Amino acid sequence: MRKKLLFLVLTTLLFSGICLAATQTEIKEDFKPSTLNQPYEEYPQVNSQGYARFRIHAPQAQNVSVSLGLGGRGGTVLTKGDDGYWTGTTAGPLDEGFHYYHLTVDGGTFNDPGTLNFYGSIRWESGIEIPAHDQDFYELKNVPHGKVQQILFPSKSNNTSMRAFVYTPPGYDKDQSKRYPVLYLQHGWGEDETAWTNQGHANLIMDNLLAENKCKPFIIVNAYGMTNDVKMGQMALFKIEPFQTVLIDELIPYIDTNFRTIADREHRGMTGLSMGGMETQTITLANLDVFSHIGLFSGGSITMNDVNNNPDFKDKVKLLFISSGSRELGGGRGGRGGRGGGAGPQANVDAMKQAGINAVFYVSPDTAHEFQSWRRSLCQMAPLMFKD
Amino acid sequence: MRKKLLFLVLTTLLFSGICLAATQTEIKEDFKPSTLNQPYEEYPQVNSQGYARFRIHAPQAQNVSVSLGLGGRGGTVLTKGDDGYWTGTTAGPLDEGFHYYHLTVDGGTFNDPGTLNFYGSIRWESGIEIPAHDQDFYELKNVPHGKVQQILFPSKSNNTSMRAFVYTPPGYDKDQSKRYPVLYLQHGWGEDETAWTNQGHANLIMDNLLAENKCKPFIIVNAYGMTNDVKMGQMALFKIEPFQTVLIDELIPYIDTNFRTIADREHRGMTGLSMGGMETQTITLANLDVFSHIGLFSGGSITMNDVNNNPDFKDKVKLLFISSGSRELGGGRGGRGGRGGGAGPQANVDAMKQAGINAVFYVSPDTAHEFQSWRRSLCQMAPLMFKD
Repeated sequence: MRKKLLFLVLTTLLFSGICLAATQTEIKEDFKPSTLNQPYEEYPQVNSQGYARFRIHAPQAQNVSVSLGLGGRGGTVLTKGDDGYWTGTTAGPLDEGFHYYHLTVDGGTFNDPGTLNFYGSIRWESGIEIPAHDQDFYELKNVPHGKVQQILFPSKSNNTSMRAFVYTPPGYDKDQSKRYPVLYLQHGWGEDETAWTNQGHANLIMDNLLAENKCKPFIIVNAYGMTNDVKMGQMALFKIEPFQTVLIDELIPYIDTNFRTIADREHRGMTGLSMGGMETQTITLANLDVFSHIGLFSGGSITMNDVNNNPDFKDKVKLLFISSGSRELGGGRGGRGGRGGGAGPQANVDAMKQAGINAVFYVSPDTAHEFQSWRRSLCQMAPLMFKD
Repeated sequence: MRKKLLFLVLTTLLFSGICLAATQTEIKEDFKPSTLNQPYEEYPQVNSQGYARFRIHAPQAQNVSVSLGLGGRGGTVLTKGDDGYWTGTTAGPLDEGFHYYHLTVDGGTFNDPGTLNFYGSIRWESGIEIPAHDQDFYELKNVPHGKVQQILFPSKSNNTSMRAFVYTPPGYDKDQSKRYPVLYLQHGWGEDETAWTNQGHANLIMDNLLAENKCKPFIIVNAYGMTNDVKMGQMALFKIEPFQTVLIDELIPYIDTNFRTIADREHRGMTGLSMGGMETQTITLANLDVFSHIGLFSGGSITMNDVNNNPDFKDKVKLLFISSGSRELGGGRGGRGGRGGGAGPQANVDAMKQAGINAVFYVSPDTAHEFQSWRRSLCQMAPLMFKD
């Protein structure tokens, strides 16, 4: 009985605390349309605290909700007004940066007609952008811009031509004698070769770094990494071979033939996010004669075990960059942060450094397993690449 | 009374006729997923006759319909099954080629989650592809492929960088001494610079023509033509100046500086579809010192009046290509086909030819004001361009 009473008191205190906090946080009514909205669309909106507000027209619907809410705490249920519009605001502020979401309308999954779509979760999803305090590094500015090219390269292993995107830095077409290093930069599970430009702004990140002379110019190639298609929940079926064949035997030779690359391993890197990080880990470790720069963003793991098992590693790897969103670290999210190594990513990178390897660990503050972590990771990693 | 009876008899006959026709046309059950579906999505489907079938999951919805139906005769109302899926088939076959559409779910406008989205009607709409008997000319084949590049060019008049897409033909990067003519190719109202690649397959049309040595290689540039934003029903507010400034003063100089163009009027063309045709008409007639090749696809009009009013026209215009979908001709659709000239487009082009102008009129068979007409128009026009 005493235990029960204690529990009741504690619970009451806890709930009072939450209610108090909720009352204290006043939602500022300075909502503006998200920068990813379709033309003329007023909703979704975002306020200066990072709350998102949605508004959907569906006068005869029974229920409408938004998958986006506070991380792990479910979505946002909208309520219907007399005008046939369903509206609702997230229960709290969202993390800075880009978020995927979708609507549930009367039990069906639809995209928000107010905003642009982005390929994630093996489908085009709605996207919303929460302005970030550091968004300057990926903003479209009045600086020289590189180009993003869609190429169709022959893939014998798939018996078709496959699409990839290639970023060439500003000035690429001016000085025809200059050759460039190449970074093969991969998306995550359920995304495709459009992600790093559309969601990641990799091109703008590079344009802005180059304008400030903060990194060497290099080419970036985004290919489709789910050659071996894997549906949600079937990651165990994933095989690296189909993509490795496309990358090593088909795409790299095509790029080296059709772009002015420095076609040696010293000037070739591979990096990926999430599942793309796992692909990077597997493919680079098996192909140190092809790659010298390795980046693992929120995915994959290279530890001292790998170094010890691979006598070439120390000599051949010129940069190992490992990163994570701060909200991924720790045990709360299935230990994603632990992927950086058994004893934690920082300890792992410290051990690498001790062994004389140019290893770097970066944590994106206050972000989770989302694109803001990876935009920042690219911005941190690029200045360290191809330095000689 | 007699009149009423006659009306009744006629109406009955008419309806019997329709019913008879509907009974006689048996729908073949050979439906397959549309080629534009998202990965793993089984619906929408298309059969060998051109019927489309839709299937939408929305178990608690009250009504679901599809905007796509028989031209001008309204959409397709779906009916709900016990499994919570709404299904329905168009009342008749659709025209060959690409069609935009959207869903109405309980009074709200949404996209079909089964298919990819394409920018039209100032929003990303669902798309479906009805296989065409002549689709070979825009299919992805095992031939050398050009590249489609996204560029961000500085626009002083808009005080920002603007996006455009540039197609460079196969081999562009190999022979650095070779220079190319340029076609500025514009989208229609409500579309943007993505349309000619995504919906139009302009890159594949060129790759295939070039592989068969059927046309000269040239660069294609797709810019955003609605610089002076115009909402639906506000076309009267459209002004050409903002886009003309971007095109003539900003984009063309950028292209000539950053690509290996032949930077003279003899090797520069402009073409557009629908509203883009109107833009092409206005801009080329005012800038014959800039352009020599003119294409009007289902929009704009250049007649003997223009020739007579413009003494330079005969000397300076090397090709005038005018086209239309066959279903646009005649009075039924607001006389769109009449845009080719007062006495009809064929008579207009005949008069041009008589006057010694290299004018060509092309009618796309059995298509309306849609992209199949414009894919075919580009395929017909390209071999006639930049021949010397």
